[in-house]
This record gives sequence, structure tokens and C-alpha cells, in this order.
Amino acid sequence: MSYAFSHRHLFDTDVLSTADIETILSLASGYAEQNRKKDRKIDKLRGRTCVNLFFENSTRTRTSFEIAAKRLGSAVISIPVAQSSTTKGETLLDTALNLDAMQIDALIMRHSEDRAPQSIAKHINAHVINAGDGKCAHPTQALLDAMTILRHKGRLDGLSVAICGDVARSRVARSNIHLLKKYGADIRVIAPDYFLSDDYKTMGVQIFSDLEAGIKDVDAVMMLRIQHERPGAGCDFSAHAQEYIATYGLNHDKLKVAKPDVIVLHPGPINRDVEITDALAADPQYSVILEQVEMGVAVRMAVIDLLVSA
Amino acid sequence: MSYAFSHRHLFDTDVLSTADIETILSLASGYAEQNRKKDRKIDKLRGRTCVNLFFENSTRTRTSFEIAAKRLGSAVISIPVAQSSTTKGETLLDTALNLDAMQIDALIMRHSEDRAPQSIAKHINAHVINAGDGKCAHPTQALLDAMTILRHKGRLDGLSVAICGDVARSRVARSNIHLLKKYGADIRVIAPDYFLSDDYKTMGVQIFSDLEAGIKDVDAVMMLRIQHERPGAGCDFSAHAQEYIATYGLNHDKLKVAKPDVIVLHPGPINRDVEITDALAADPQYSVILEQVEMGVAVRMAVIDLLVSA
Amino acid sequence: MSYAFSHRHLFDTDVLSTADIETILSLASGYAEQNRKKDRKIDKLRGRTCVNLFFENSTRTRTSFEIAAKRLGSAVISIPVAQSSTTKGETLLDTALNLDAMQIDALIMRHSEDRAPQSIAKHINAHVINAGDGKCAHPTQALLDAMTILRHKGRLDGLSVAICGDVARSRVARSNIHLLKKYGADIRVIAPDYFLSDDYKTMGVQIFSDLEAGIKDVDAVMMLRIQHERPGAGCDFSAHAQEYIATYGLNHDKLKVAKPDVIVLHPGPINRDVEITDALAADPQYSVILEQVEMGVAVRMAVIDLLVSA
Repeated sequence: MSYAFSHRHLFDTDVLSTADIETILSLASGYAEQNRKKDRKIDKLRGRTCVNLFFENSTRTRTSFEIAAKRLGSAVISIPVAQSSTTKGETLLDTALNLDAMQIDALIMRHSEDRAPQSIAKHINAHVINAGDGKCAHPTQALLDAMTILRHKGRLDGLSVAICGDVARSRVARSNIHLLKKYGADIRVIAPDYFLSDDYKTMGVQIFSDLEAGIKDVDAVMMLRIQHERPGAGCDFSAHAQEYIATYGLNHDKLKVAKPDVIVLHPGPINRDVEITDALAADPQYSVILEQVEMGVAVRMAVIDLLVSA
Repeated sequence: MSYAFSHRHLFDTDVLSTADIETILSLASGYAEQNRKKDRKIDKLRGRTCVNLFFENSTRTRTSFEIAAKRLGSAVISIPVAQSSTTKGETLLDTALNLDAMQIDALIMRHSEDRAPQSIAKHINAHVINAGDGKCAHPTQALLDAMTILRHKGRLDGLSVAICGDVARSRVARSNIHLLKKYGADIRVIAPDYFLSDDYKTMGVQIFSDLEAGIKDVDAVMMLRIQHERPGAGCDFSAHAQEYIATYGLNHDKLKVAKPDVIVLHPGPINRDVEITDALAADPQYSVILEQVEMGVAVRMAVIDLLVSA
Repeated sequence: MSYAFSHRHLFDTDVLSTADIETILSLASGYAEQNRKKDRKIDKLRGRTCVNLFFENSTRTRTSFEIAAKRLGSAVISIPVAQSSTTKGETLLDTALNLDAMQIDALIMRHSEDRAPQSIAKHINAHVINAGDGKCAHPTQALLDAMTILRHKGRLDGLSVAICGDVARSRVARSNIHLLKKYGADIRVIAPDYFLSDDYKTMGVQIFSDLEAGIKDVDAVMMLRIQHERPGAGCDFSAHAQEYIATYGLNHDKLKVAKPDVIVLHPGPINRDVEITDALAADPQYSVILEQVEMGVAVRMAVIDLLVSA
């Protein structure tokens, strides 16, 4: 099967058309099936080379991309964070140029700087896949979230989705909003003042400071990770922790105002019993958190395949 | 060839029957031969994914498992220690659940906590292989030790084996005792008071504080590594070091009371000239230390194969 | 095609004959072509195992070797630096002996100690490939430099080549001089006193303290990296930095005295705007720096192939 997909890189979801998104999710759907079989590997990208260049620590996303590329038959090189962090004073661009000169097919990169992938992509031949840049974008997370929602709701059009927590520092929230708005979603952003930032006011979303008002009648709730490790919060969180958990921590009780078939997502890693109770995170009636992880591999296979095979 | 092997996981040697052990060693024997050829790879586990999750530093065991899985044709993902050590506050169980959601076949794990593999295995689909948990168990080490002994003695039944050194903190000693006792071995544990712990008193072994009494007429001597990096010694070893080396450090002279064809094992890494003299460690007449390492790859191939192919 | 290549290891360029060098570069030339295709992988070393054992941080060389071995179809194990640095007190030799016992084919090693590869090779069965030892040798760098020069000049015989910078601490300079002298090159070493060392006085090269005198009419200029991370400079460089950049930093203007078709090489990573201006490093008319990186993969494929296939 051949797909029409005209992008050279994947920086964010904002530039994807709904046709692009459906191409990705349709291909990913086949890979999700294949991943449940014993022989999960194909040879489609045999002889190709993908490089994981992560300047921020990550077990799950780095591993997910590594597994995805290997299941397509590609070689994968993972540059260790400590070494990649320019210990010899080399710039990010120099590192990328050097890897590119080794004839690599895809550079999968995570960097703390907003728009780092765009700044690199114009200088190299390899396809750049953004695995998270600063507070800006995390497109494969938004795609795997969309895929998970689609599997449960049968559609993306016109859903009501709440995104709750540390939105100021969340690239996950921003990429999800870009994607879901293409489907006319009713998007509700729920956050206390100190976790909000101005850009959300112009993104065409409803903003709530009250959790229950925000999740009333929604189809899906995305709880965000509090990004302690990233700069830019409007406060010292520890002063607010107890109040935050009481007000914004999701549990079975608060969830009652959402639709009866509401699903709960979280990009992980969870700060346990902060953003969401352990009991709710583990409740298969609502929580789709591990399904998100499973779909993550399939979506990343689809993205790598579409970019590299083109 | 098909093998009867009914275990889903490998936690320790205690639950293995002698039939299980012979199944593993017989399969490993074929792999040991194959490993001496040029093309050491088969495609039996093509399309499968094994993950190395080591929370303690290890070059040899991690590498041995990685080589073993690759020679079976499996993809291998090694999670770097620094990243796996839950830098974002994620629990071991969360990490395991996430990896499992990526559809992995085997989780090969080392952890400082006793019985960590058991606590994880009940929550995931992947086969769990214990690569060392706390002071508790290191089953593939015991199996490779058994294989090495078997190659030299032609049997495991009724041998006389001395295990000497820091037994209190040794998972290697415990897994070896569980295994060897199934074959009616005469097991002698040799240690000073400060390296002994109470559990050995009820394991059906003879305990010696005198090295030469302990190794008299034995078929094999296992010298243990002093586990400076692990907590739990009954003393500050540095105060005892000189005396320990004089009393318990093995050399050619002390070895004379053992059987003439005695073999000397060590799980590595050796504290050189502490547990054993360099000269004895390097003497091919007695030392089988590097053969242990070679058999380690073969035994791990057999274990992974039996669990994952089942 | 079969090649005559009688070496078991690659320690340095000094022991290679010109026939050896041509064998390597000829094979590498084919691999360079293959690397520009989509399927860059062959199965020549299927079932083999290469190990990267780097005791000094390196992104590009380690990655280059890893990509090279994978494109030949070999498994590759990269031992992380932190773990390989003998955290349990194991010696380099013990580490190598253990890896060798796992039946590996090539041990690709980098170590801060001069002649570490030679000291290891006599004890193990695997082929040892020197990826840089102390200040002594970096033979694959010299070979990839030769290959890059050959592609531009059509020959190696009788060229005039300037090597400029921190030669005292440069294994790159030394391996290049050994190689180029076999072709009767006119070699000019350019360095201030504090970056010079006595051994260059007996290597059959001309020594210059003046950059422009040194590069007059040369065919190629190799700018060296200032090895801040290595001990052994004759001074505190920071006191000389401004003067060094003014006197020895290469730019378009200074380059005018070289041949019009001069090429500029740098082994990387560049200290930007120190050894060479950004503008010159990025100028495709002179700079072949990224072509060096590309040829690095091809040369390493050739070296691994010749040693391991033999």
C-alpha cells in the first residue's frame, strides 16, 4: 500500500492536514495489530539508519522510537545523553551535521530549546522527527493520544476534551490542541493561574480554573505531568502541592461529572497520587494510559515509515 | 528440537527441577558450540524484543545478555542505568508496565532490592529474567557455574564444592547452593564471621571458618567477590583486609589440599590479589574463570530461548 | 572480491604498507558508494559481534564505528563509558578478557593510555582496532583523511600537506604523518612552541612557527583540534588564546598563499572560530570536513571487513 504524505519532517501537528493525520493513524493501526503478533518485525527499512539524539532524559519515548525503528528493520543508533550534551563544546548543529554526513535517514531529536528541530532540519538531508522541543511541541504524543481516543470513541470529530494541569510548560498540551482543533473539538484547558500561560488565551480553547466545571460532560480527560524538571513555572509548586492535589488531582469522585464513558489519558511518567490517584490510573474502565504507550510504538512506526520510505 | 519447560519466568534456581536444569544445560551446550563458529546468529527469535533493565552497574552480565539475545535474532533494548534509575521519580513498576505495554518479550532485570523480579512479574506479560536481585538470587550465574563444572567433571551429582568469601552479600552463593543441593552436592561454605549470615545455617551446608579445612578434597572451589558496593557487611572490611587476604585469599599453595583435579571458579569481577592471586586466576590448570564467562552467553541464550519461544 | 591483508589488528598507520593502504581505500571506496544508496547494509559479517569499548567520550567516532559495523551486518555492542570505566575496580585487561571470552570478533577501543590496544591485543583472540590511544595514534582518522585527500587530488604521492595546531597532544597528526610519509609527502608541521613536542623533530617533517610560511603552496591543510581535555600542553592555553587565534586561526585571507585548489581538513569536533573561522569551515570550495566524516564510515567498514573476514 502506498500513502500520499508530502512532509519531509515532523515538527508539530499544526502543519498536518486531517488527511495527513488519517494517513498516519491508518498505517499505525496496521502496525498496532502487527505488534501484537510474535514476529513484530518487517524489513521495510532494511539498510536504513535512524538516530536517537535526546538531550533530555527519557526512558519511554526514546525506547518507543528505538523499538519502532527496529521493528521496521532499520538500524538504530542511540546517542547517550551525557555524551550528546556537547561535552567537547560541540554545538547541536555540528553534532547534527556530523551525523547527517554519516548518511542517516532519520534524526529523532529531543531538545530543551523551542524549535530546535526546525533550526536543524534546514541544514541536513536526514528527516527530522521532533521527539519534544522545549515547551513547544511533541507531535508523536499528540498523534498517539488521538489514536487512543479514536479507538475508544470511533471518531475524533466534535469530541469534548479536557486538558488539565501544568499547561504552561506542556508541549503535550500544545500539540494536542493543534491536532484536536482540526477536528472541531471542544477543548477545555483546566489549570490554576500559576500553571497557565498567555498563549492559551488565543488558541481557541475554553479556559477553566475549576476542575469539575472543566470536565463536565467531556469525552476524554488528559491529565498532564507537572514538569518539575523544566523551568518556567509561575510559582514554587511545593507551596501549592497540597492544595493542587485537593483541587486538581483527578479521582473517581471528581470524574463523575464527565460523560459515563469518559476515558482518562496521561502522557507519563505520572507523579503518582499528584495528578491522578493510583486507583484511577489503574482502573481499566477509565484509564487508557498503557494503551497510549502501546499506540506510541505503532504511531512512531507509521511516522518513521512515511518519512523515510517516501 | 522441542523442549518441555514450563516456567514463565526465571527468578531463581530453587524452583527449577533437575529436568529443567538439564533442559537448559543441554540447549546451552549446543549454543556454546555454535558460539565458537563464525556465524553465531540464528533467527529463532526474529521479530522479538528483549529489554535489559539494569539498576546496578554491570558490564559483563548486561553485555552477556545482550549478546545472547542478539545471537538468537532478537532485538535488544538496553536501558541505560542513569536513565532507568527513575530520574523523573517513576517507580520500577511504572517503568516495567510501560516497557511491557510496548509489547516486549523478555524483561531482563537487575535490581538492588530482594525479589524485585517477582514483584514485577505478576503485573506484566513479558517473561522476567532475574539478572540479580539484591543479595537474593542470580540464577543464570548458578546455571553457568553448573555448566562449567559439568564440562570438567562430567557430572553434577555428588560433587564436593566449596564456596568461599563474602557469602552474606552473595546472591551468587545462594543461587548456587539451591542448584547444587538438587544434585546432592556436599557444599562447604567458608567465611569469617563478618562475612557470614544466619540464613546459611539452615541451608543444609557445612560452614567452615578455616579455608584449608573447607577445601580439603573438594572438586571445585568458588571464590566470591567481596561486594564492597553492596550494604550489609558485618564490619568495615578495610580493618580486616590484610588478615582476610592472608587467611582466605586463595593461592596455589592453599589449593594443594583440594582434589588434584580441582577447578577454581569466580563470578567476576575479581578484586585482584584479594580473593585469589593473579597467578592462580590465570593458571589454566585450575582456573575456569573465563570459561564461565563463555558459558554465560550460551546459558543465557538457552534461558531466553526456552522462555520466549514457549 | 578477495583482498590480501595480513594484519590481525590495526594499531597505527606506521606498520601498513602502501599496498595495505590501497587495499583499505579501494574497499572503502566501494562502501562509500553503497552508503549513498538507500539500502546501505550487506550481510557480509552476519552473525559476528563487534564491541565498542570507549574509555574517552566520543560521539562521532563511536557512532561512526557502530554504523560501520551494522552496515556490514555485524551485531554491535557499545559499552557505555561510565560503566566501562572500571567502576568495580576491574582492570582494562580484565574487561577485555571477559569480552573476548564471549566470542567477539572485533574490539574497537579508545583509551587515554598510549599503546593500550597493543597491550590488550596480545592477550585476546578478537581483532583489536585502535580508535585512538592517548597522544599516540588514531589510524582510521589518518586513513579517512587520506581517502578524502585522494578523492580531491587523485593521488597521495608527493603532495604538500600542512598540519597545524596542537600537535603535541594530537594522535591524529602522528598517524597522518606516518601514513603520508609513505607517499613521499612534503609535510609541514605548524605550531607555536607551547603546542610542539620533541618527537616531531625526528619525524622527517618541516617545522614552522609561522602559519603563512607553512601553508605556502600546500595542497591540503589539516587544522587540529586543541585538545583541552587532554593533559600535556606546554602552557595554560587561555593565556595564549587571543594571540593563537590571530596567529594560527585559519581564515580565507591566510589561506590565499596555499595552492588555489587547496583543501582544508579538520578531524572535529571544531572549537568554532578558534582553529578555523566558521565561514571557512562552511565554505564548500575549500572545506572537506563533512566529507571526512562521510568517508570515516566507509573506511571503518573496510577496516572491520578486512580484519574480521580474513
